Amino acid sequence: MPSSFDPARDLVVVIMAGGSGTRFWPLSTEQLPKQFIRLFGSRTMLQLTWDRIAGLVPPERVLVLTNARFAATVAQQLPGLPVANIIGEPMPRDTSGAIGLAAALCRGRHGDPVMAVLTADHRIEPVDQFRATLLSAARAAAASEALITFGIEPSFPATGYGYLEAGELLEEDDGVGHHRLLRFCEKPDLETARGFVDSGRFCWNSGMFVWRTSSIWRELEAHLPRHAALLAPLAEADGTEGWADALRAAFETLPKVSIDYGVMEKAASVRMVRARFQWSDVGGWLALEQFHEPDPDGNRSRGHIEPLDARRNFVFCEDDTETVALVGVEDLVVVRAGNRTLVTHRDGAEEVKKIVERMKRDLGG
Amino acid sequence: MPSSFDPARDLVVVIMAGGSGTRFWPLSTEQLPKQFIRLFGSRTMLQLTWDRIAGLVPPERVLVLTNARFAATVAQQLPGLPVANIIGEPMPRDTSGAIGLAAALCRGRHGDPVMAVLTADHRIEPVDQFRATLLSAARAAAASEALITFGIEPSFPATGYGYLEAGELLEEDDGVGHHRLLRFCEKPDLETARGFVDSGRFCWNSGMFVWRTSSIWRELEAHLPRHAALLAPLAEADGTEGWADALRAAFETLPKVSIDYGVMEKAASVRMVRARFQWSDVGGWLALEQFHEPDPDGNRSRGHIEPLDARRNFVFCEDDTETVALVGVEDLVVVRAGNRTLVTHRDGAEEVKKIVERMKRDLGG
Repeated sequence: MPSSFDPARDLVVVIMAGGSGTRFWPLSTEQLPKQFIRLFGSRTMLQLTWDRIAGLVPPERVLVLTNARFAATVAQQLPGLPVANIIGEPMPRDTSGAIGLAAALCRGRHGDPVMAVLTADHRIEPVDQFRATLLSAARAAAASEALITFGIEPSFPATGYGYLEAGELLEEDDGVGHHRLLRFCEKPDLETARGFVDSGRFCWNSGMFVWRTSSIWRELEAHLPRHAALLAPLAEADGTEGWADALRAAFETLPKVSIDYGVMEKAASVRMVRARFQWSDVGGWLALEQFHEPDPDGNRSRGHIEPLDARRNFVFCEDDTETVALVGVEDLVVVRAGNRTLVTHRDGAEEVKKIVERMKRDLGG
Repeated sequence: MPSSFDPARDLVVVIMAGGSGTRFWPLSTEQLPKQFIRLFGSRTMLQLTWDRIAGLVPPERVLVLTNARFAATVAQQLPGLPVANIIGEPMPRDTSGAIGLAAALCRGRHGDPVMAVLTADHRIEPVDQFRATLLSAARAAAASEALITFGIEPSFPATGYGYLEAGELLEEDDGVGHHRLLRFCEKPDLETARGFVDSGRFCWNSGMFVWRTSSIWRELEAHLPRHAALLAPLAEADGTEGWADALRAAFETLPKVSIDYGVMEKAASVRMVRARFQWSDVGGWLALEQFHEPDPDGNRSRGHIEPLDARRNFVFCEDDTETVALVGVEDLVVVRAGNRTLVTHRDGAEEVKKIVERMKRDLGG
């Protein structure tokens, strides 16, 4: 590695866009999951992810991994991305499959770049703080063999996120603390989460990583040797006529395992950087609500609302020209998208998945 | 009059389509009031009114009176109606203005036909019973000088309708009872309404009338002589270049008065026929709900609903291809139309007018 880290030359950004969640129905659908919808302004979550790294690396050094059936959607939403950099997985094989595949392609295409593995459907602000954290982690990854995770300062005792327990402070670089990582913790119960937050040692696990390609590959060989063996030949097949068949053959036999469980929890050198940015995985309608300012009666909305004796409602319209009148109602979530409307009590907002599953069954899906 | 009444030769149907209500927002709007919207199936209320008299009289013998700004809408919805039979009132002058104008035009165009004055925005079923009642009234009108009203057998002690007190049974014709009319009653309070219903003598006032043109004209001359004087010359102006100016000049000076108050309550010979049909003025969303079958949880809908732990909701979609998911909500009325959505508690359904007025004010209207 050159001594002075230059992201445009030394970094590859890998965007993981394979999600298939339905918690944002009716805005998201099976055909258009969360990463492809507009939850914030006029850009989709994937486009916002792209925007955050725009200019940091050239488009040739961005890989987007997604389910093969969404490859066209990625191409449409990211017209600046070379189509060869859209990697359509023939079937989902969890994060170790996607990351292992990305690592194999990075080896073949770029040698040993630093890889920044980013999620495509999270909210991250502000962008300059995100970039500062990313570059600090990338510099450390370039200068070491560490696998680096992004820990998010918890703002409340969330029970919906995994946690990272930070150990010794190894260095501080551009205001970003680099810690030894002691432990990955599954989603805790509320009491445990409170203890985590009070201790000051625990951060939310954002699911984003930075490492040298050779570092993750070495750990894959050590802890998921089958993955390494099945995926290594894909670097050869990349760009050839045999690509699709080779990819399918490898993925068909790949076990489904998460990168946290398969590699990170077992790896020799894992660090955590304390992110300097605000982060939310925006797990559903109620998580989105906080990003909208309330009126004096606690109603929040995207799109025009006409409230009358209405309190604490959240209205979200895909199309900003819509009007939703609310009369004598409280604690509702109302969502408008296309020819679909959701009207749910706040307490039922997480049940939307059941509706989607039922409709799928009714369609014989 | 010929001794044998032939509606195709002796009847003119006058459809009153001048309403401008907003109680069906967001389906109805200021640009498209209730008579022009589809509350039942694929035909608008006006079209259903037209369908009910189809074949009874030729299109040349149907007059539709409406506000001038809705003349094009009438033409579009009733392509079979000669455009000369769409009478656009330059400004609203209540029912005595519209009916007086229709009578003046009937005199000029047809001599002394029987006029059936029908509302354009009520629900009437079944059609054959409606026609039987209409024809029975028309025969009586042809053979007498009576003004005949349609009384509806009350099915509950409504406080939103006016009532007619029936007197002596004068005749029965084709199963339709013809009574002397004793009294017009304003909308009663609930106790009074209960007394009305229990007595068996009172019927709802449907606002529909049948009479010979000469009969209503004579009563206009007697009780609203200014109307008769201002409107009589319009028969001469009908079809000439001066029509629009003459109509505007007459209407500008016409006092606003209802036909009930201005004529019916004072006329010499007023009868009531007991209608053999079901009738509703469908005064708002809650009145419409009863025409939809409930699911086991009491949810009713037009359009596809996906209820989950949802009870006693009413959903109405202008577009039948829409889906509305209801989760954990009760007693709501949800209406979808264009880019407008209403979500109201059942108890607030009558407040919709306030929203419409507020939006109009906000637009500087």
